Amino acid sequence: MLMFREEEIRAGVKLDDQALEAVETAFRTLATGNVSQPPVARVDIPEENGEADIKTAYIEGFDGFAVKVSTGFFNNETYGLPSLGGLMMLFSTKTGQPKALLQDNGYLTDVRTGLAGAVAAKHLAPANVKTAGVLGTGMQARMQIEALQLVRSFEQVLVYGRRQEKAEAYQKEMEEKLGCPVKVVTTMEEVVKGSEVVVTTTPATAPYLKPEWLHSNLHITAVGSDAPDKQELEVGVFEKADIAACDVWAQSKQMGEGRAALEAGVLHEDTPLRELGAIIAGLESTRSNESAITVCDLTGTGVQDTAIAMHAYQALKKSEE
Amino acid sequence: MLMFREEEIRAGVKLDDQALEAVETAFRTLATGNVSQPPVARVDIPEENGEADIKTAYIEGFDGFAVKVSTGFFNNETYGLPSLGGLMMLFSTKTGQPKALLQDNGYLTDVRTGLAGAVAAKHLAPANVKTAGVLGTGMQARMQIEALQLVRSFEQVLVYGRRQEKAEAYQKEMEEKLGCPVKVVTTMEEVVKGSEVVVTTTPATAPYLKPEWLHSNLHITAVGSDAPDKQELEVGVFEKADIAACDVWAQSKQMGEGRAALEAGVLHEDTPLRELGAIIAGLESTRSNESAITVCDLTGTGVQDTAIAMHAYQALKKSEE
Repeated sequence: MLMFREEEIRAGVKLDDQALEAVETAFRTLATGNVSQPPVARVDIPEENGEADIKTAYIEGFDGFAVKVSTGFFNNETYGLPSLGGLMMLFSTKTGQPKALLQDNGYLTDVRTGLAGAVAAKHLAPANVKTAGVLGTGMQARMQIEALQLVRSFEQVLVYGRRQEKAEAYQKEMEEKLGCPVKVVTTMEEVVKGSEVVVTTTPATAPYLKPEWLHSNLHITAVGSDAPDKQELEVGVFEKADIAACDVWAQSKQMGEGRAALEAGVLHEDTPLRELGAIIAGLESTRSNESAITVCDLTGTGVQDTAIAMHAYQALKKSEE
Repeated sequence: MLMFREEEIRAGVKLDDQALEAVETAFRTLATGNVSQPPVARVDIPEENGEADIKTAYIEGFDGFAVKVSTGFFNNETYGLPSLGGLMMLFSTKTGQPKALLQDNGYLTDVRTGLAGAVAAKHLAPANVKTAGVLGTGMQARMQIEALQLVRSFEQVLVYGRRQEKAEAYQKEMEEKLGCPVKVVTTMEEVVKGSEVVVTTTPATAPYLKPEWLHSNLHITAVGSDAPDKQELEVGVFEKADIAACDVWAQSKQMGEGRAALEAGVLHEDTPLRELGAIIAGLESTRSNESAITVCDLTGTGVQDTAIAMHAYQALKKSEE
């Protein structure tokens, strides 16, 4: 069993085309191959304001399957520790034996979440993107826009954050990383109206993105909602979209944007959000013209974890040889 | 993060009173304290005849919570590897950070399963047990009877196995371990009729233990059924029992003996099997006299894994100091 620490993993696993391909293949296999992906197992530790989520998936054709434990312990600040953490284990799909322990403290989750956004944009966004917009200024606001560069050559970024100093820190850091101008704007509306791709990355529990802001030639990826109490998009966004998609409908309808839309009667069980894997595989249609409006809700799936863990294992094993 | 290998774990963790107490406390807390125990997450790898089960639970008052991955890969014999494997990880309930990786290859599962049987017998079996009976000759046939010695002083063991040579191997090994006679008998009926405690440990998919074999002064623990296709007890056993219990009803009715009894209408959702934790805590009654017939169905729960992982961590950390 190989052991890798966060530092090594950060050095060896990047947002690049190989990692993107691993995540894209995982989604495609969800639609076309044999996949076993149980529901997320969640443990609550209320006495310490803590929670742990366990995700796993077997994907046909992958040599290993990951078991990921993600932790959120929100008293940790008082102990001088980060709130979020976690690790992944990789097991052989041939023998069940452990192949690797990846002590990434959540880094690989950040990467695979960013890459899922890039996969969604690759298959749904307009071909020509001049401006990429992002709501929120945290880790995913960074990962999503950096990963988007793998699939679309945008010329500038619009960013909105509730706290000015965080938006400015984002601007500074990302202008250097992306090599293009990043403009801080003062309303969410400006971001949506001024961009061809918008990524929403906030932990909002009340929807804020309004259907009246939508315009032709637009793709929105919603990354924030991963629990039943979260929501970023007003349900009218789904009514206005030409194509509405998600990573996995079973999750979206429970803990993603699908939940509120289903409750409001905007979506129905027999007309669910189409799944990203089916779009990648050509089993569901995507935008038919540059001017369409598309939306994709991402809740985070076990197949992404298995894909990034296998990719990391191969990359890191190679660098050790 | 401390790492322990199978050899160290086997040397440091035994079927003893401390381990028994850890498992008993875990069950009691299921009834009296705050516990978070999600359903088992199962991954199937049909191409390799493999499966992985993931169990976890937080138990109030325990410093750590375990995440256990158990694997069964039934082509492994052709690769010269054992079919069953697995490991446990222990995380801090205070910070969520990993405390230990226990590469036990399933040993701790064997131990905690044996201990659950001992806890069931402690609280349900007649006080005076002269003969302990066991059906099956595998690992749990060993663990259950060895653990039973912690709570009842029996004088002899009756064992039945389909294969004579395995029963004889059991006899030889266990006479030495237990320090009392072990008698191989040729029918299951003889085991049940001749014992005050019976443990069923087979992977049977059709019930074989008949209600007509039951007699006064008897406790039966059924360990075999841990999947919806398994069953050891005819449902009439539950009709005849004075007290019928299980580890966790939510699991027993899905993958334990509760399932068939519920389907047959012998049990009902509003009169479920009483849970072991509630019996330990005195919230549900147990046998009121020596002559009663009691039954307990064990499916294996995440709280046992957390209990044994914490116990192992404390024992092994101490031995390192």
